[in-house]
Amino acid sequence: MHTVYLNGDYAPRSSAKISIFDRGLLFSDAVYEVISVIDGRLIDMDRHITRLERSLGELSINAFADWAAISQNLIAENGLQEGLVYLQVSRGVMDEREYRWPAPETAPTIFAFAQERTLLENPMALRGMRIITRPDLRWQRCDIKTTQLLYASLMKMEAVAAGVDDVWMTRDDMVTEGTSQNAHIINRDGVLISHQLDRRILPGVTRIEMLTQAEAMGLTVEQRAFSVDEAKNAAEAFISSSTLLVMPVVEIDGHSIGDGQPGKRTRKIRQNYIAAVQGDHSKKP
Amino acid sequence: MHTVYLNGDYAPRSSAKISIFDRGLLFSDAVYEVISVIDGRLIDMDRHITRLERSLGELSINAFADWAAISQNLIAENGLQEGLVYLQVSRGVMDEREYRWPAPETAPTIFAFAQERTLLENPMALRGMRIITRPDLRWQRCDIKTTQLLYASLMKMEAVAAGVDDVWMTRDDMVTEGTSQNAHIINRDGVLISHQLDRRILPGVTRIEMLTQAEAMGLTVEQRAFSVDEAKNAAEAFISSSTLLVMPVVEIDGHSIGDGQPGKRTRKIRQNYIAAVQGDHSKKP
Repeated sequence: MHTVYLNGDYAPRSSAKISIFDRGLLFSDAVYEVISVIDGRLIDMDRHITRLERSLGELSINAFADWAAISQNLIAENGLQEGLVYLQVSRGVMDEREYRWPAPETAPTIFAFAQERTLLENPMALRGMRIITRPDLRWQRCDIKTTQLLYASLMKMEAVAAGVDDVWMTRDDMVTEGTSQNAHIINRDGVLISHQLDRRILPGVTRIEMLTQAEAMGLTVEQRAFSVDEAKNAAEAFISSSTLLVMPVVEIDGHSIGDGQPGKRTRKIRQNYIAAVQGDHSKKP
Repeated sequence: MHTVYLNGDYAPRSSAKISIFDRGLLFSDAVYEVISVIDGRLIDMDRHITRLERSLGELSINAFADWAAISQNLIAENGLQEGLVYLQVSRGVMDEREYRWPAPETAPTIFAFAQERTLLENPMALRGMRIITRPDLRWQRCDIKTTQLLYASLMKMEAVAAGVDDVWMTRDDMVTEGTSQNAHIINRDGVLISHQLDRRILPGVTRIEMLTQAEAMGLTVEQRAFSVDEAKNAAEAFISSSTLLVMPVVEIDGHSIGDGQPGKRTRKIRQNYIAAVQGDHSKKP
């Protein structure tokens, strides 16, 4: 993907550079969104914009742009069919390094890029994900989508080292979320359990539509934290994320979930989720 | 300060720019040091290098450079007499955004700049700092000096909004540290209490020499956490940091410490600390 967006301009990626005095770089004073693209179209863009604006609001970063137009232009410029658009906004460039924020009229730094990725035909959907659990040592405002992703990245590398696909993090023995996915289970009574929206998890955009589809299938949904033991004893487990969509989990800490195969209801939720977001497209011009 | 350092080159600050695909920018996958400069000389550089190398090691970032030479060159190029040198190292630039680290041979991004600041004649040393306390919601590896400084920056802005100088953060009602300073008290028995070195605080470079000076003055040092109440009832309170050196605290959450003036022993520790680091200089060529 050759063309990126930076502060109003579309430019080759090699020339897209920002000052070393950007607060995103020096203070992680930045938020972001990842929007999936299927058939050349943005999925759930309105909800991503709502969440981005909430993140900006929580940090009092003043930034306004036509997020959808930027994303659509990147798709067009790069001929992207399937993958993602990444959008980042930081509080802007400082004259001097200072913990205090610069004047509110300081221009934010806004950049975006497109990336190809296989979303629909991801082979992981057939085999399912293998997960290990680790303590969640992140900051306690995980509801804000900031670029403070170092711990998530360290946990992803723990998963790689352990030969599995991802880590589910835990606080007080309860599962919070994956490195970049919300975590869910369906227990043996057929109840879908998903962590309540609070400061411990990111309010997933995919999670919203996933829960809608699950309820339409007749599943009861309980929004509460679940323990690692509860997850190991679940009938099915899965994650949701913008780029993995809905993805089955077949193993947690070496323990097979259900019969060790992607769960039936999980597969159906994935199918219905994909149909819903594709149907959503077909309504648009 | 006009000249900065970026990946081997000294350049005007306006041209020092890095790729938007730098992991420091996208994942906060970066560590840093701030070294104070007095009389045009670096203070405690060896300890800063030791800590930088520990931070890099904890994150498995492969980066080697002559940190002291870079810092000295910036001082010379900019004619810096008093202030600081800032050094940052990130894991480098990715081709695609990925939580997984790029190949170990990926070149790290290294940059540095100098900044003027009044250290010795800081008027705050005469009036003392006013502090408020807030919960410490940072990640749980505060011993690694990463650029994940968003919470500290938010807390600095809470201090600004409250009309005070800084925030002391607390976990389980015990004081951890300030937004960019270690926190200390001297109780009514004349014991200096300073949080033990663990994952809750940064191992301050200034703290090491400060404790040496305090012990040389005959003070007993206890390295343990103290509560907000213990701090309010202390005879003296103070902070240490590379750029504030040793700085008295005269008020915590609206409560005056001691007689509300900078403590006598604190002032003596500051004096002796400054004499020690200046004496240390005079020994060097």
